[in-house]
Amino acid sequence: MAIPFTTTVQNLPATTPFVGPETLQRQSGKAFKLRIGANESAWGMSPKARAAMIEALHDSRFYADPESHDLRTALAEQHGVSIDEIAIDAGVDTLLGLLVRMLISPGDKVVTSFGGYPTFNYHVAGYGGDLQTVPYKGLYEDAEALLAATQSLQAPLVYFANPDNPMGTCHPADTVQCLIDGIPENSVLALDEAYIEFAAEGTAPAIDTSNPRVLRFRTFSKAWGMAGQRVGYAIGHRDVITGFNKTRNHFGLNRVAQIGALESLQDQDFLQQVITLNAAARERIMVMAAELGLYAEPSSTNFVAVDVGSKERATAMIAALAEREVFMRMPGVEPLNRYIRVGTCKAEDFDFFQHAFKDSLASL
Amino acid sequence: MAIPFTTTVQNLPATTPFVGPETLQRQSGKAFKLRIGANESAWGMSPKARAAMIEALHDSRFYADPESHDLRTALAEQHGVSIDEIAIDAGVDTLLGLLVRMLISPGDKVVTSFGGYPTFNYHVAGYGGDLQTVPYKGLYEDAEALLAATQSLQAPLVYFANPDNPMGTCHPADTVQCLIDGIPENSVLALDEAYIEFAAEGTAPAIDTSNPRVLRFRTFSKAWGMAGQRVGYAIGHRDVITGFNKTRNHFGLNRVAQIGALESLQDQDFLQQVITLNAAARERIMVMAAELGLYAEPSSTNFVAVDVGSKERATAMIAALAEREVFMRMPGVEPLNRYIRVGTCKAEDFDFFQHAFKDSLASL
Repeated sequence: MAIPFTTTVQNLPATTPFVGPETLQRQSGKAFKLRIGANESAWGMSPKARAAMIEALHDSRFYADPESHDLRTALAEQHGVSIDEIAIDAGVDTLLGLLVRMLISPGDKVVTSFGGYPTFNYHVAGYGGDLQTVPYKGLYEDAEALLAATQSLQAPLVYFANPDNPMGTCHPADTVQCLIDGIPENSVLALDEAYIEFAAEGTAPAIDTSNPRVLRFRTFSKAWGMAGQRVGYAIGHRDVITGFNKTRNHFGLNRVAQIGALESLQDQDFLQQVITLNAAARERIMVMAAELGLYAEPSSTNFVAVDVGSKERATAMIAALAEREVFMRMPGVEPLNRYIRVGTCKAEDFDFFQHAFKDSLASL
Repeated sequence: MAIPFTTTVQNLPATTPFVGPETLQRQSGKAFKLRIGANESAWGMSPKARAAMIEALHDSRFYADPESHDLRTALAEQHGVSIDEIAIDAGVDTLLGLLVRMLISPGDKVVTSFGGYPTFNYHVAGYGGDLQTVPYKGLYEDAEALLAATQSLQAPLVYFANPDNPMGTCHPADTVQCLIDGIPENSVLALDEAYIEFAAEGTAPAIDTSNPRVLRFRTFSKAWGMAGQRVGYAIGHRDVITGFNKTRNHFGLNRVAQIGALESLQDQDFLQQVITLNAAARERIMVMAAELGLYAEPSSTNFVAVDVGSKERATAMIAALAEREVFMRMPGVEPLNRYIRVGTCKAEDFDFFQHAFKDSLASL
């Protein structure tokens, strides 16, 4: 069959970054009762946002404002930048894809951590980039090694998540600032801060949009509880943001989602509640792990990495949890894959979860 | 400022396919009362879909099924194809962008009509394609000339909309089938049928997914009244669909939008009502134009191209309508730009529209 794919696309594998829980449910014929595998928020979105979205559904026949003017204005104010320094699109994934497209020609080197965010790697492969990885340092992304690799490879793009996914760990602002400061000319750091709201205050270095060598990625998918709505944004130098505007789908964003995001920003109390509830939920997981004699890594996100001893045990644990109607995921590569990634859940769901967890562990 | 953009992106102009009505409102400081410039549906979406979406908002914290299994299943059934022959994404625009990415390397020839869909052209430019245009034949896309150009240029990609936007004209199924049959090996026809529901029955040739040289594009943005929700799909050979799955954002689709689209499909009565109401609304425009001594082209879409005599008069007409709080657009290039594109509106809005139209015309 002669389909005239480009060489890059012709050579792509038919793998996907993640298998969705719906696929697993279809395979097993059994629905999950607790879905804590995709770092979705247990606390949902702001009720005020929801109310505004119900109202906005009436105008679903209209395309959204392709400039996302109102939402960019609100975000610019919040972050103390100009609206020309913000790009909004359908989730951070979409923006990462555009960034790779903007910077990477086939064969160009791209640096990330071995075991880092698979969707970023998917995009790098998708544009024919040559992914170069550095190992984690323990359970932390190794900022120094990432920087050294970027410099020595003269890579136009390097990815770093802080807090990190899948381990939930976090570097202090000073470390991140050192990384930012070291990024060479002709390179861009994609600093993924999807989980930043869950980290200690002061974790994010000051935003400096005069620096074209760093882009900050934020999202409404995690703390704001709007993963299914797909709204993420990038903050950076206006010349880089212009690159997004030259390549993005100008009418690609959902109108109701934008209105929900805008309304969410007005509900900072809700965000604070989620942060508090999530911290308590993390603590429940830490306590449970300690009681079970398992090491759990202190987390700056909405999940906790728990060491179950080996890749084999982790794999079996994920399967055992699925049997017990709990959807969970684990890191994909050595040496991180002796951990499982336990998402936070509401207090009222914890007994069910804990029972399933202990039962699964006992079944190994 | 040394931002390491690829050569293709570096050379892109900072133009966008369309200016949104919100931008015009911000510029004028005046809101539009009637928004009939973007071919959005005057009749909105199915109330059943809306009810399902309000319910679904409760689960906005969850990502959507990355396989869109349920919606693909329903669409596959409707079109008599396999679910592996359908790709869903955030609007036809997103899918067209992916298709260009899949097939076009910098410098590759792409064929379309001069004055055809600007967003397609935007994507071609975005991937460094070399856009080759053939003129309209009167107010019709010239299927024979498009085919001849595709063959002689050995272009891997050709775009054809039926019904057409911006002129609203339509070719019979036989003509489209001739085009499909003539597409050479190593070429793909993007057959954009965004407005097909508004055309006479039998306008769409039979769908044949055994042919890898044609992809059919359909949308929930037009007749289904869900433009702001962003759901479109492509139907084609499974090997081409696999290309979408290798490149698309697997978690890019809005969860609530998918549920709305799925529910819409269950409400075929609503679709039939919209089609009937839209036909009556087109007729009102035809009658008004005739009364004013203006030629209006019979339309197979939800807008009517009305000849106002010259590019200058059309431009002035759009401005005069905006003054009177009516948002309308016109074709972008000669010789089509002596027409304006009058979107259909509800019966209860027609008096307001007609008054604004006559008043604008008198002001020229």
